[in-house]
Amino acid sequence: MKDVPGPTIRRLILYYRYLEELAKKDPDRKISSVALGKGVGVTATQVRKDLSYFGPLGLKGVGYEVGSLKNRLEKIIGFNRNWEVALVGAGNLGRALVYYQKFKDLGLNIVEVFDCDLNKIGNMINGITVKSTKEMQRIIFERGIKIAVIAVPAEEAQQVAEELVNAGVRAIWNFAPVPLDLDSEIIVISEDLSSGIGSLIYRLKQVN
Amino acid sequence: MKDVPGPTIRRLILYYRYLEELAKKDPDRKISSVALGKGVGVTATQVRKDLSYFGPLGLKGVGYEVGSLKNRLEKIIGFNRNWEVALVGAGNLGRALVYYQKFKDLGLNIVEVFDCDLNKIGNMINGITVKSTKEMQRIIFERGIKIAVIAVPAEEAQQVAEELVNAGVRAIWNFAPVPLDLDSEIIVISEDLSSGIGSLIYRLKQVN
Repeated sequence: MKDVPGPTIRRLILYYRYLEELAKKDPDRKISSVALGKGVGVTATQVRKDLSYFGPLGLKGVGYEVGSLKNRLEKIIGFNRNWEVALVGAGNLGRALVYYQKFKDLGLNIVEVFDCDLNKIGNMINGITVKSTKEMQRIIFERGIKIAVIAVPAEEAQQVAEELVNAGVRAIWNFAPVPLDLDSEIIVISEDLSSGIGSLIYRLKQVN
Repeated sequence: MKDVPGPTIRRLILYYRYLEELAKKDPDRKISSVALGKGVGVTATQVRKDLSYFGPLGLKGVGYEVGSLKNRLEKIIGFNRNWEVALVGAGNLGRALVYYQKFKDLGLNIVEVFDCDLNKIGNMINGITVKSTKEMQRIIFERGIKIAVIAVPAEEAQQVAEELVNAGVRAIWNFAPVPLDLDSEIIVISEDLSSGIGSLIYRLKQVN
């Protein structure tokens, strides 16, 4: 399970979410790799290849049992655990992320929100009081928080990331549109919104 | 310029944004492919390969002129044009996107916001009045809007997408965590937030 490629992991999450919906109705039903692939927009071959990294999960000619495959994927991805998460940057995007119910469903609990803006410190977002970034390192260290979300402006992101790492954070989900320069042991996933829209504009321009 | 791969386009946007920052300070300075690559986290070979799709943009041994490469990329991507955009779903994520200044900088103007919730219709978000999704098709058709952002719950996304396409939308930026089943001519870019966090949790689990 060590060398599973990133795109496979991303697809496992798609499978997981699709199976989750199906399991709500009937966890005992079977699903073929063709049907599972169709549900998430990939080929059956891709489904089988992705799942083969984790040993035999289905039966030849029978397919996968929806509920049990969902549970296996949940454990493989790590969605069955609960993680405490700190979020930095209480602007609109940060607020949206705090309210995004899906994260809680996936075992991610945003438990602390930090901002440097005096107008935001002390405000409540979905039951969480915004605290000053001056207290950030101490609180993260004391709570032993390992995951952080960065939703600050580009020019502040590197400094915030370094402070988070110093406080013990091991994984950063970065929404600032700038690459972070950190120790290679730190897991960084960058979510770059303008990259998606750039691709869209480029493709639209070709036909207009 | 027809068969430029998707990942190349995504990197062009990274180059563009990095050059934009540099050009603010000194548009006449030169930059090597090594330095440009380092700035966005890719190799010099990758930079040269990506840019080679669009003819000679730099001089051997001299590098690229920051300001002129930025302008070329701006035109290649389509960021030099202005696009009117409709957004559907005035929840937290939708609101965050309306306020996201970067889109305006890239030539994307969100000019209409729609929601089906009577408590949201009539509210103002960043100067735009939220209108009922019942009026959506008529307004989008009349204004000739070609780009839409979907920020509604998963179960509403497909229906909203079909209505948008019927009204003339050609490109959809989908934030709902569900694949859209649309005519293959329609450009769909899906921004799946839980896929990013899934990858992060998976990798963190390997070391914890």
